[in-house]
Amino acid sequence: HMDSIGFTVRYFNQLLSIGSPDAEMGTKLVGHDSFGPIECELEFDKEDHAFYKFGRLIERGTPLTYKIDFRVSEEFIETAYLDNRLGIYNALKVAETLKDGVIIFSCWEEHGGGSVGYLADFIYKKWGVRQALISDITWITEGVEHGKGAAISLRDRNIPRRSFVDKIIHLAEENNIPYQLEVEGMGSSDGGELQRSPYPFDWCFVGAPELGPHTPNEKVHKKDIDSMIALYTCLMKKL
Amino acid sequence: HMDSIGFTVRYFNQLLSIGSPDAEMGTKLVGHDSFGPIECELEFDKEDHAFYKFGRLIERGTPLTYKIDFRVSEEFIETAYLDNRLGIYNALKVAETLKDGVIIFSCWEEHGGGSVGYLADFIYKKWGVRQALISDITWITEGVEHGKGAAISLRDRNIPRRSFVDKIIHLAEENNIPYQLEVEGMGSSDGGELQRSPYPFDWCFVGAPELGPHTPNEKVHKKDIDSMIALYTCLMKKL
Amino acid sequence: HMDSIGFTVRYFNQLLSIGSPDAEMGTKLVGHDSFGPIECELEFDKEDHAFYKFGRLIERGTPLTYKIDFRVSEEFIETAYLDNRLGIYNALKVAETLKDGVIIFSCWEEHGGGSVGYLADFIYKKWGVRQALISDITWITEGVEHGKGAAISLRDRNIPRRSFVDKIIHLAEENNIPYQLEVEGMGSSDGGELQRSPYPFDWCFVGAPELGPHTPNEKVHKKDIDSMIALYTCLMKKL
Repeated sequence: HMDSIGFTVRYFNQLLSIGSPDAEMGTKLVGHDSFGPIECELEFDKEDHAFYKFGRLIERGTPLTYKIDFRVSEEFIETAYLDNRLGIYNALKVAETLKDGVIIFSCWEEHGGGSVGYLADFIYKKWGVRQALISDITWITEGVEHGKGAAISLRDRNIPRRSFVDKIIHLAEENNIPYQLEVEGMGSSDGGELQRSPYPFDWCFVGAPELGPHTPNEKVHKKDIDSMIALYTCLMKKL
Repeated sequence: HMDSIGFTVRYFNQLLSIGSPDAEMGTKLVGHDSFGPIECELEFDKEDHAFYKFGRLIERGTPLTYKIDFRVSEEFIETAYLDNRLGIYNALKVAETLKDGVIIFSCWEEHGGGSVGYLADFIYKKWGVRQALISDITWITEGVEHGKGAAISLRDRNIPRRSFVDKIIHLAEENNIPYQLEVEGMGSSDGGELQRSPYPFDWCFVGAPELGPHTPNEKVHKKDIDSMIALYTCLMKKL
Repeated sequence: HMDSIGFTVRYFNQLLSIGSPDAEMGTKLVGHDSFGPIECELEFDKEDHAFYKFGRLIERGTPLTYKIDFRVSEEFIETAYLDNRLGIYNALKVAETLKDGVIIFSCWEEHGGGSVGYLADFIYKKWGVRQALISDITWITEGVEHGKGAAISLRDRNIPRRSFVDKIIHLAEENNIPYQLEVEGMGSSDGGELQRSPYPFDWCFVGAPELGPHTPNEKVHKKDIDSMIALYTCLMKKL
């Protein structure tokens, strides 16, 4: 998916969430309205309602996102919106050598969905595709760590068909690509939308884990990105 | 949509909500079962469970709705179920002069949806329609007032495509029709169901605002009804 | 539907719910992973997180279900997973004499759905079927008792079309089959998924009630099973 999370400007200086942003007081937000470019600060009141602090009124309905502060070290990348810029980066890297397969860029995953149903209808009817990998970014947890490879998700709030997930695990093993198994009870992805669509798709979430999801400081280990690209390159050939 | 919110009679004198009614102790509810017509009173216990007070048992499963008390003044209309009788009234007024367009009367919007998917399939496949206006009633808020025109909703829990909403705003401006911009983080409409359907529709909620949503005393300014009809008449021609 | 509820093994000895299991500390859970068969015990910490107690680590992602303890008396059957083994049993019994109709075995009803949309598409397009009975098990409540017949549900969280439900009630009356009318504000079934699907199905939930839903000790009266089979046999002919 191609979404950013963030805020919509409401009346007065109120902000409404797009998706579920997780940022501190003082976080820099950017956008633009018909009066020009905007760089303002995020504030909260005691009831945790979000506001903006800016020298002028911002037009109703203007979307605001985190100001990008891209940081790269020997091992890590850290910035806003690695979820899901890295999922897209992975798709584009895989596209460089892809011979047979469809790459889908979806939207609205972060705030209620709505594009996957139509996209699934299209690719199912046009090419008979019935298997999907969700190229997205997941979280560091007690069981999923930085640098140990892309996470193959056995479940989140939704549960993919076990035989399909097993095929993916076996292909990772066979090809010596580092991976981690994730088991989550919360969270969802475009896989959930595919699951509920009236099209018979198998799906599995495969993606690098990050620290600080939905904050301006999402952090991913470079090895996990490499593993993700290697795994997708292999899976798009052999699944 | 054509729904009323209200209650279903359960066992003993218990009531279960249909949609999300918001009425006081003592509100008059009407209905009928095989024993005849019913006019009873709404009660609540300490845990806010709803009950009916009536001289006899009401048959299990009987739906009850607010007793209508229609009040009209120079500026306002006040009664139950303006949401969404006014949305239907608007559709019927627009129908009087409509040359090209489809008017859809949906149901179940107030309690989980379920008709929009099929209706979208039908009109998309039959006529290739890909744009929808949601003719429904919204709320008065700090930013949306009585008498300032129909609200064009930039978002509620769902977020329509910005370029489509902008087209609507520009047509309202161009044709000098009063309107208000609404930005909400809660609430939904048939637009949300359309969004999640597997059909590629753009949609936007356009409707007069009211005080007292889902109470027996919904109140709408006549000017906002006029603005709503004028705006739909224009949009159905020019979108 | 064919699902069991239960647990997925996570990291360390954590368990995540599949659907909404309702079992006590000490409940026996069974499963198997690549190290062999598993019979372990369910535990909870103070925050009600679930864990397993077993002599070895269980592989990440392994599903665990209640150990079956089947008990039958003159009047009752009591065991785990009568929801929905009895719904399936009913379907198989009806199949013995069925001349015209489709029997559908769905999955994922207990954890988010996802098969009904495709199945509805298939049977609607292939055979023009537009009526559905949900062969599933419901709960004992203040208004629905053991031994009084299968429950015909007038609503749960979803509300089926009244005219279809009335047809079913009249057929039960006409054929002297014992039944109970259920009116619930919570809970859902494959009927809810059918309702939200883009196919024009009428649906109604008809099923025996049980004590102890989602526990290892679900208890159903034999008379209610007989009534359920008699009612389905009649409805599949006459609806």
